[in-house]
Amino acid sequence: MIKQFEITLPAHRRGYHLITNEIVSCLQPLIKNGLANLMLLHTSAALTINENADPDVRIDFESFMNKLIPDLDKDFIHTIEGPDDMSAHLKSSILGASLTIPIVNGKLRLGTWQGIYLCEFRNHATERKIFVTLMGE
Amino acid sequence: MIKQFEITLPAHRRGYHLITNEIVSCLQPLIKNGLANLMLLHTSAALTINENADPDVRIDFESFMNKLIPDLDKDFIHTIEGPDDMSAHLKSSILGASLTIPIVNGKLRLGTWQGIYLCEFRNHATERKIFVTLMGE
Amino acid sequence: MIKQFEITLPAHRRGYHLITNEIVSCLQPLIKNGLANLMLLHTSAALTINENADPDVRIDFESFMNKLIPDLDKDFIHTIEGPDDMSAHLKSSILGASLTIPIVNGKLRLGTWQGIYLCEFRNHATERKIFVTLMGE
Repeated sequence: MIKQFEITLPAHRRGYHLITNEIVSCLQPLIKNGLANLMLLHTSAALTINENADPDVRIDFESFMNKLIPDLDKDFIHTIEGPDDMSAHLKSSILGASLTIPIVNGKLRLGTWQGIYLCEFRNHATERKIFVTLMGE
Repeated sequence: MIKQFEITLPAHRRGYHLITNEIVSCLQPLIKNGLANLMLLHTSAALTINENADPDVRIDFESFMNKLIPDLDKDFIHTIEGPDDMSAHLKSSILGASLTIPIVNGKLRLGTWQGIYLCEFRNHATERKIFVTLMGE
Repeated sequence: MIKQFEITLPAHRRGYHLITNEIVSCLQPLIKNGLANLMLLHTSAALTINENADPDVRIDFESFMNKLIPDLDKDFIHTIEGPDDMSAHLKSSILGASLTIPIVNGKLRLGTWQGIYLCEFRNHATERKIFVTLMGE
């Protein structure tokens, strides 16, 4: 069985946001068993899986990734879309724009401490679209 | 339905190359709906999804990733395969060697501004093989 | 056909470990053709695909990634779980916790030089669980 549809997340401020519950509610009803592919349809944001407990983890993600990949690095030539755009593209490919997550008994099968993050890299962010493919039985 | 086959990309010079059209033409005919898994069969190159418009983005990828992960870092001990080999392995794992992309109505479902990049990290690059799995209906 | 089950890897010391054979033996019997999704159920380790030959590659991964993402970066605020925890979370998202690998004729279809690495980021590591989904025919 294949189910495919698009979901839209409201604009989130720049940073790392735990969106597991938003995602799960958008996916209902899930298929029983199989895989969920979540494809973020943008190149200046990312999806990743990380710790779902201490919000400080998300703050450290924001500060560290900004140091690792600074806005307006002096060598960037793609600067026309703003100081946060080229850094956003790099972060998007380094963290990844797509996730494939198991579904078991109608639920996403994540580890106890795992949650889904929306990583928003733009200063003035907009809605973000995710294309969902559920495949299984 | 499952279709599996190998495709070969011609040698591309070191850098980031927009290969969406090459990939799409190699995949025809696509299945109707499902997922395409593209597995690059190499450890010194990568596949990623990023901006398909301004070629300067790909130039900035090359210059920034070379700063982040320099050839011949002074601590590398795996130097026997050349100054660009260990850096290539690191970049390959950081950007990823595999993509899973939705297929809808016989087309790859990417965002408006998304394209597929071949990231070639070797100075003297050769052909690159991708193993394709199409799964769906 | 869908087969789903959990496998447990014994504790591995901090570092990068070639685990292709361990994984393959845990997956038997594989389905004939399709995809294997390996979802590491943790946020302080990762799975990646890289060179399966020279063990020095894995040593360079450990030393370089430790320089890129240092333990106890001075700006980290999530320090309660130890000096290696926040760096582990970052590495896990940068390298990725999940792999989707083709299966052909009952075998994982990897390139000649590709192997599966368990990337263990914690100083005092424990067992690691991987949730496996095999989908195909």
